[in-house]
Amino acid sequence: MTTKRVTEPTTIDEIPTPALLVERSVFDANLAAMDAVRPGSELRPHVKAFKSTAMAARLSADGHTGFCCATPREVEGLVAAGLGQDVLLANESLDVGRLGALAQRVDREANITVAVDSDATVDAAITAGIRSVLIDIEVGLPRCGCDPTDAGRLADRARAGGLDVRGVMGYEGHLMMIEDRSERIGRVESSMRDLLAAAADVGGDIVSGGGTGTFDTNTWCTEIQAGSYTLLDTDYAKLDLPFEIALNVLGTVVSKSAKGWMIADTGLKSMAMDHGNPTWDGGDVFFLSDEHITLLPPDIDQWSVGDRVRIQPAHVDPTIAKHEQMWLIDGDDVIDRWDVDLRHW
Amino acid sequence: MTTKRVTEPTTIDEIPTPALLVERSVFDANLAAMDAVRPGSELRPHVKAFKSTAMAARLSADGHTGFCCATPREVEGLVAAGLGQDVLLANESLDVGRLGALAQRVDREANITVAVDSDATVDAAITAGIRSVLIDIEVGLPRCGCDPTDAGRLADRARAGGLDVRGVMGYEGHLMMIEDRSERIGRVESSMRDLLAAAADVGGDIVSGGGTGTFDTNTWCTEIQAGSYTLLDTDYAKLDLPFEIALNVLGTVVSKSAKGWMIADTGLKSMAMDHGNPTWDGGDVFFLSDEHITLLPPDIDQWSVGDRVRIQPAHVDPTIAKHEQMWLIDGDDVIDRWDVDLRHW
Repeated sequence: MTTKRVTEPTTIDEIPTPALLVERSVFDANLAAMDAVRPGSELRPHVKAFKSTAMAARLSADGHTGFCCATPREVEGLVAAGLGQDVLLANESLDVGRLGALAQRVDREANITVAVDSDATVDAAITAGIRSVLIDIEVGLPRCGCDPTDAGRLADRARAGGLDVRGVMGYEGHLMMIEDRSERIGRVESSMRDLLAAAADVGGDIVSGGGTGTFDTNTWCTEIQAGSYTLLDTDYAKLDLPFEIALNVLGTVVSKSAKGWMIADTGLKSMAMDHGNPTWDGGDVFFLSDEHITLLPPDIDQWSVGDRVRIQPAHVDPTIAKHEQMWLIDGDDVIDRWDVDLRHW
Repeated sequence: MTTKRVTEPTTIDEIPTPALLVERSVFDANLAAMDAVRPGSELRPHVKAFKSTAMAARLSADGHTGFCCATPREVEGLVAAGLGQDVLLANESLDVGRLGALAQRVDREANITVAVDSDATVDAAITAGIRSVLIDIEVGLPRCGCDPTDAGRLADRARAGGLDVRGVMGYEGHLMMIEDRSERIGRVESSMRDLLAAAADVGGDIVSGGGTGTFDTNTWCTEIQAGSYTLLDTDYAKLDLPFEIALNVLGTVVSKSAKGWMIADTGLKSMAMDHGNPTWDGGDVFFLSDEHITLLPPDIDQWSVGDRVRIQPAHVDPTIAKHEQMWLIDGDDVIDRWDVDLRHW
């Protein structure tokens, strides 16, 4: 946890806007709900969702000491923060310079594993001095991952180059948002069958996959890569998951019109739009521009310029990546400031 | 201009990805095309589009010494960089603390004007010690701005509080994307008629408005607030404007599949999605996720893992706001590094 600075806000009213708020009680409940199903090493929290070593430290204290990253910067930051015990770069990289710098960080306190899915990425890992890899398998999502039938060959190539092949990973991202639970289970099973077939060819102990949407229905992986569950967003909230929205974007009403709309300072530079408009429980969201959101409350006369609003983003990961910090709150009190210190690449 | 660091890339191949590239020849041509129509003080460049004092310095050297900002941070940064000769915060703020800090910066070298559109924002400016304001008028866009008929009253209130009311501003943002030029001219004229009526009630010398989409058709304002023209995006490129796309997001192909797709590392955390998918001139864009873009080239066999791609974003302003720097390039050479030093709020 970071220590709150002396000059920093102690109540929500003192926070400059736009700003990210994390409601502690909801956050704590989300972590408890996950721990009940995926305790300790059965969960490898994905820090791409929140990009904060302060939050990662909390998860580590809860027993989730292995982490999952999407960028070299996230790996570097976790290791520097003393959270590098078992860090997986769950992404391919051809950047031998940056992989090499990561490899230099491995010691008694830090262990870094990198995903590979091609001859080129295996060779980059070897050249960079990386010691451990997972073979990344395509399990239906048109993104990274080798064909399952090629996994054994890649593992052989990696081992011939001196790499420790710890197992496989595969992300069934295309199945996260299936609303019907039984359909989700069936399709995840089919997808994971491909992953387990590859795992048999590859060897090693790890079968890594899953995410917030399949944290409980994916019972085939040895560990689940989930991050969004910590804070949730309106997209995941549509599913039957035991997590609630802990993240809001705090704004100030800077203008209102007798025509019925009002404007807050939580524009699209403060909020990701790739999953559509955010949600406001005080009325409708009309549209967003760079630094503004136009809101349509049922009764404009009940609102004043200077009022505060809380907006719920549709996609938590890229929303957080736009901000320098999150404010942990309890009621009206500011409890802590979490730097979003793992941003960029 | 920032000075390039010794260890920094000298060619494009050395730039870590994802990264923003600015093609110098296109950027120079865009500036020349604007200068031909809006020289000197007829243009007040909007730094919200590019958030970089290095780029602002270039525009100032071209004679555009007045700037337009959307956030207090942008104002602070311009003043600190010696570019505060005539800075307009073209946005409402109720934050007396931050406005007060800006007011403290005003001296012989810096002059700050703030937009106001309500009793509350006029009073906040007075309390903060701000000296100069523009009355912000709603001219058809459902966003900030007072009713044109209320502008004179607000100006009186401001002057009674000791403020210098320099004139009016009004942004016809709802008219930027009208593709038919004659329709655009007609609707801009109607919108600006409201602004000029308010200007007559308010007094002062300044009538500020317009943007990249109406830089030449809005002939009623004394100054145009445009920023996107410097770099352009695929959205503005649909119009009949004399500007070309100078900004690309550089990526590396990290994975490819025999099924016909390949993956680069320019995901939606590196690119704004509010105006839709970006464009790739090498083929179709399938979809983006946090750290990946899935591309569909006509012939996957012509591509290798490790190849570089350039992606054109649909909305330049929030794309730049996601990055720490832009790289100015000439052919394969890296000419300069521009810090995106005016990010956040």
